[in-house]
Amino acid sequence: MLDAVLDDGRVAHVAVLDDKDGQPYVVPVGYARDGDTVLFHGSTASRLFRTLAAGAATCLTVTRYDGLVLARSTFESSMHYRCAMVLGSATPLLGDAKAAALERITEHLMPGRWADARHPSPKELAATLVLSLPLTEWSVKVSDAPPADLEEDLDRPVWAGVVPVREAHGDPQPAPDLLPGMTVPAYVRAWAADVRA
Amino acid sequence: MLDAVLDDGRVAHVAVLDDKDGQPYVVPVGYARDGDTVLFHGSTASRLFRTLAAGAATCLTVTRYDGLVLARSTFESSMHYRCAMVLGSATPLLGDAKAAALERITEHLMPGRWADARHPSPKELAATLVLSLPLTEWSVKVSDAPPADLEEDLDRPVWAGVVPVREAHGDPQPAPDLLPGMTVPAYVRAWAADVRA
Repeated sequence: MLDAVLDDGRVAHVAVLDDKDGQPYVVPVGYARDGDTVLFHGSTASRLFRTLAAGAATCLTVTRYDGLVLARSTFESSMHYRCAMVLGSATPLLGDAKAAALERITEHLMPGRWADARHPSPKELAATLVLSLPLTEWSVKVSDAPPADLEEDLDRPVWAGVVPVREAHGDPQPAPDLLPGMTVPAYVRAWAADVRA
Repeated sequence: MLDAVLDDGRVAHVAVLDDKDGQPYVVPVGYARDGDTVLFHGSTASRLFRTLAAGAATCLTVTRYDGLVLARSTFESSMHYRCAMVLGSATPLLGDAKAAALERITEHLMPGRWADARHPSPKELAATLVLSLPLTEWSVKVSDAPPADLEEDLDRPVWAGVVPVREAHGDPQPAPDLLPGMTVPAYVRAWAADVRA
């Protein structure tokens, strides 16, 4: 279930604690799971990412918001969701592992793209921090049940049920400076079939 | 722009630092903006929420993931997103302010529902922590531009552009124990028109 939730998401929220004043930050990142690790990347120019790369304790949370649960009472009303929370410390990847991790992240977010786009140059690699967080301490919560009303609320003349939420790709929008004659690649067109949640 | 991002989202990610061991957590919450504050709620049984209620420094981040940006290079490839980050300390609401905040959160997540569903009982109110975080220290980042490739990459025969991502409500699914004859309310049917991002 942990793998399924991580593989279904595209954006994770990562905690970073500022050493100086103890202020926590929650930063969105693109990521990918690779076996028993989560990979994510940021800029070497980011102080928060450098803090993570130095081994600060962190939490990476991926939440898939799947719908609204309408109970007869507002108290029992809630959301359908799948949430994976990973605790630990990240390690910066270097050399071949770093390049492989960038391929993995690209292919998770944009399947098929790695074979088509230009790969990172040495200068670009040097400007990128790639972090690996092991899947050793984690929890997963899933809410996917119908409304659970109190017995005494079941006779209320109120509609109850679930309104699902779906995430889908829209029509690709070509860049204004696209070369004439370039058409949307088949692997991009295939994303339209990938309706998540 | 801050208001627009907060008003368009439904799930925020909140940082909580565990006093004991300094471990940060990132927890998803339903929320609503109310003027110059963000309101969110949790259970009084949650240690992390009690930590927030005691005034711990926190960060509440709302990220709207709007699409994939396919540049000719993987390095310049990225996402379209809108991200609001709010720093500060939350205050627990009590009495009328607490009840009003719960109405506000319900109406943000489920417009029209408050007039229809049963309101919280005193016992349910007592089991709920409602927190208010002021919008005083915050930042907003928006990425909504076409791919920004290096000049030297523009002649590559690679498709470039943006693939938007949209979030939409699916068909309402009635609860298995719904009273006979109850139909989907008009305010719920209206949500289907609310395609976000």
